[in-house]
Amino acid sequence: MDRVDLNADLGESFGPYTYGADRDLLSLVTSANVACGFHGGDPEVMHRAVALAKQRGVAVGAHPGYRDREGFGRRYLAMTPGAVTDSLLYQIGALESFCRAEGTRVAYVKPHGALYNAAAKEESLAQAIVEGLVQYGGGLTLLCPAGSAMERAAEKRGVPTAREFFADRGYEEDGSLVSRSQPGAVITDPEEVCARVLQAVREGTVTTRTGGLLSVKFDSICLHGDNPSAVELAKKIRASLVEAGVQLLPFAGV
Amino acid sequence: MDRVDLNADLGESFGPYTYGADRDLLSLVTSANVACGFHGGDPEVMHRAVALAKQRGVAVGAHPGYRDREGFGRRYLAMTPGAVTDSLLYQIGALESFCRAEGTRVAYVKPHGALYNAAAKEESLAQAIVEGLVQYGGGLTLLCPAGSAMERAAEKRGVPTAREFFADRGYEEDGSLVSRSQPGAVITDPEEVCARVLQAVREGTVTTRTGGLLSVKFDSICLHGDNPSAVELAKKIRASLVEAGVQLLPFAGV
Amino acid sequence: MDRVDLNADLGESFGPYTYGADRDLLSLVTSANVACGFHGGDPEVMHRAVALAKQRGVAVGAHPGYRDREGFGRRYLAMTPGAVTDSLLYQIGALESFCRAEGTRVAYVKPHGALYNAAAKEESLAQAIVEGLVQYGGGLTLLCPAGSAMERAAEKRGVPTAREFFADRGYEEDGSLVSRSQPGAVITDPEEVCARVLQAVREGTVTTRTGGLLSVKFDSICLHGDNPSAVELAKKIRASLVEAGVQLLPFAGV
Amino acid sequence: MDRVDLNADLGESFGPYTYGADRDLLSLVTSANVACGFHGGDPEVMHRAVALAKQRGVAVGAHPGYRDREGFGRRYLAMTPGAVTDSLLYQIGALESFCRAEGTRVAYVKPHGALYNAAAKEESLAQAIVEGLVQYGGGLTLLCPAGSAMERAAEKRGVPTAREFFADRGYEEDGSLVSRSQPGAVITDPEEVCARVLQAVREGTVTTRTGGLLSVKFDSICLHGDNPSAVELAKKIRASLVEAGVQLLPFAGV
Repeated sequence: MDRVDLNADLGESFGPYTYGADRDLLSLVTSANVACGFHGGDPEVMHRAVALAKQRGVAVGAHPGYRDREGFGRRYLAMTPGAVTDSLLYQIGALESFCRAEGTRVAYVKPHGALYNAAAKEESLAQAIVEGLVQYGGGLTLLCPAGSAMERAAEKRGVPTAREFFADRGYEEDGSLVSRSQPGAVITDPEEVCARVLQAVREGTVTTRTGGLLSVKFDSICLHGDNPSAVELAKKIRASLVEAGVQLLPFAGV
Repeated sequence: MDRVDLNADLGESFGPYTYGADRDLLSLVTSANVACGFHGGDPEVMHRAVALAKQRGVAVGAHPGYRDREGFGRRYLAMTPGAVTDSLLYQIGALESFCRAEGTRVAYVKPHGALYNAAAKEESLAQAIVEGLVQYGGGLTLLCPAGSAMERAAEKRGVPTAREFFADRGYEEDGSLVSRSQPGAVITDPEEVCARVLQAVREGTVTTRTGGLLSVKFDSICLHGDNPSAVELAKKIRASLVEAGVQLLPFAGV
Repeated sequence: MDRVDLNADLGESFGPYTYGADRDLLSLVTSANVACGFHGGDPEVMHRAVALAKQRGVAVGAHPGYRDREGFGRRYLAMTPGAVTDSLLYQIGALESFCRAEGTRVAYVKPHGALYNAAAKEESLAQAIVEGLVQYGGGLTLLCPAGSAMERAAEKRGVPTAREFFADRGYEEDGSLVSRSQPGAVITDPEEVCARVLQAVREGTVTTRTGGLLSVKFDSICLHGDNPSAVELAKKIRASLVEAGVQLLPFAGV
Repeated sequence: MDRVDLNADLGESFGPYTYGADRDLLSLVTSANVACGFHGGDPEVMHRAVALAKQRGVAVGAHPGYRDREGFGRRYLAMTPGAVTDSLLYQIGALESFCRAEGTRVAYVKPHGALYNAAAKEESLAQAIVEGLVQYGGGLTLLCPAGSAMERAAEKRGVPTAREFFADRGYEEDGSLVSRSQPGAVITDPEEVCARVLQAVREGTVTTRTGGLLSVKFDSICLHGDNPSAVELAKKIRASLVEAGVQLLPFAGV
């Protein structure tokens, strides 16, 4: 690969509460997953995030989640498929409004937290999400894990997809992430993370937990910015990609 | 006038809670003020309301309110102008999403409850609302009281307006509504209400609380549907307009 | 049995939204499961429900649920056990405040909706609920299904329990309720429901879906009041118990 | 004065969002105003705050606010008096539950933010708050500004009061705080703040904005902890009081 996208979650602050490092991240990423006011974010936070993204040429993606602020969208909620579709439409539309105001557009959708994790596996949930993108129209791309139920559901409906590589997570032989309850789930050494990123980009492979070589296909690398060391790591990853001559470009256009 | 619009609030049900008579109203009105999930409504309720409106050729308006479900948007909340603008953008965009899904569009905006009442008088609040419409773009019309701060703010910014006539409310000599704490605030006799509506449409006048004749200009008549007798009254008003040969058409197109 | 308790959910209205028939139910039941402002209810609704219960000698129970108004607490939410315990404490305490104001007390706790259903089966969730009652102190009784994980968890910690009989639900041979996706899940004929209630009270048995006789132990009969025919049925059940000379008394005192 | 109380707001974190420095403050204050889940706080945050307060011998006060998380209770909301009373009861009861669990009690109530500011001036709002304390019973003290509508309303109903001195705020000749839009509203020099605190405690006076000497009566000094320099200032104030031999004790007992 001679080009790749960097994405991160942002716009998750809320009222008096600051969360994450939006300004820093918007200097690092090429695609911003902007929270839509359900699990995080509020109208003013969203507007600021979109305005900054526009200024810096960063693509805006909707990052819809469960309406569970207290749990930050990280707790599974048993919604019906119809409720999921309408919740997606609502959140995407709300974000689009700020994009209109700033002269940009929602380019893609990446579901958040427990919704993302559940829809990676559950076909009916994945279909409900894709149904939201289809009803919305306008060529939205779905950002999702390679080989997931979301990817399959999107392909069936002709919805474009982009796939993520997780820079700091261990992989199993079958391509799934190492469970957080297992050793090797999260890679904390910055040098090792950067090396893995470069290997993935250059050779299209990742070394699995058990030492094998797994082929990986992806369009975007997922970064984190919810603590100072995460931002530092994101900077290092970006720098090592730039140094290696890899172009950083939004997968979905701006 | 040989044509007029009829508008009513709907889409205000929420989760397990039913409010108002959306199906009945959508057979009566030409413009539907659809709640946007802050004071009332939720994504599924909004989607159903928009789908029905589309089916019946009814224009869809955004009905944004304060984020105060418990008070149903009827309690003044001291928001900053910036927060009001962004709140409007958020709510309009969320509703537009369901319009896209159903092949229609948000044609106008009518603020709800305490926001409407406050913005009729407070210039800064009225400007914040109009700013939301301007930033949103796309030629949204503002539905507001004649002679209000909202009307003035909209005219300054080149935002089209439509003005309401309140079928069942008493008017003072200065064109303001009789305060609800005064006798004559609400007219309950259906015959009298219908007579006032016809007088307003045909002659452009309303008889004031003190017996004078006031000239009124309006584009739409506001109906209510939050209880069975309100729906009955709305039916009578519509019937007497139809009988009088007045055309019922959305002020803002569909 | 020469005495039994009748319980029903109430206090579930919210802001502008009316739900259920609190006044009717408070003339019928001996124990009121009052919503605590998470899945339904708000401070004014709760206060009114408690004041009426006190007036009519009805025992007050806390009816805590998931903080999911849109789903009315009927959608499973993956909370940690610690969050469940603290959520119970919060909701019970909030209701107790209105009981203090009205000179009564929270006598028991019946979890609501998806929380009730999940805690009937999941040991860790049942334990988290019981932990809330233990930390609260004051001898609260847990109202739960016979043979459930909640009953077992309560017994282990020395928390008193009361068990429910569902008047209008079919039972399987193993004592579980017939799944709502199966025929025979809900019994709609009022005569049949009343006959089953009398059989259960007098003979301690219920006829199962497959025609067998199952022994049932219970302290309270669960009534519903969320639609007019449910209220009619509740009246009939109460009348047939009174006619049969069964005393209606709160299981937990008042 | 040979003794005084130090109070601060805490327990305002929420779900994923950290706010303020609860652990630091609980080593500095003698009374903790714990948010009750409406403007800030959630059940787990409240429980932790109460447990720490109990450990450190700090008195627990309820810090009820408007149900407006996005505005953090800092925006005026036009509630009816009845709704305010019931909202107070709800919030106090919820906090009491965690106090029961930890073997302490709610000792006092200090309304938060816009509710505090409005109730300092509006008699009907002040009365609604005091009505909540009366209905709750149990001898709660109201922590409020000297000379405020809250103080008057409490005295009329026999509710004990404690009055606050604002360490870092300028005072007018009439005892009101210098408006935040004026110079001299906030005193930022730590030495000056400490000198004012000592003068107030020892001599019962404060130097006004215009240079006069105003007599002040108070039971508690209000500290802030929502940013690192506020915590530093709180430490300095406490240290200078200790050094001056002033005893730091909760005004309301523990």
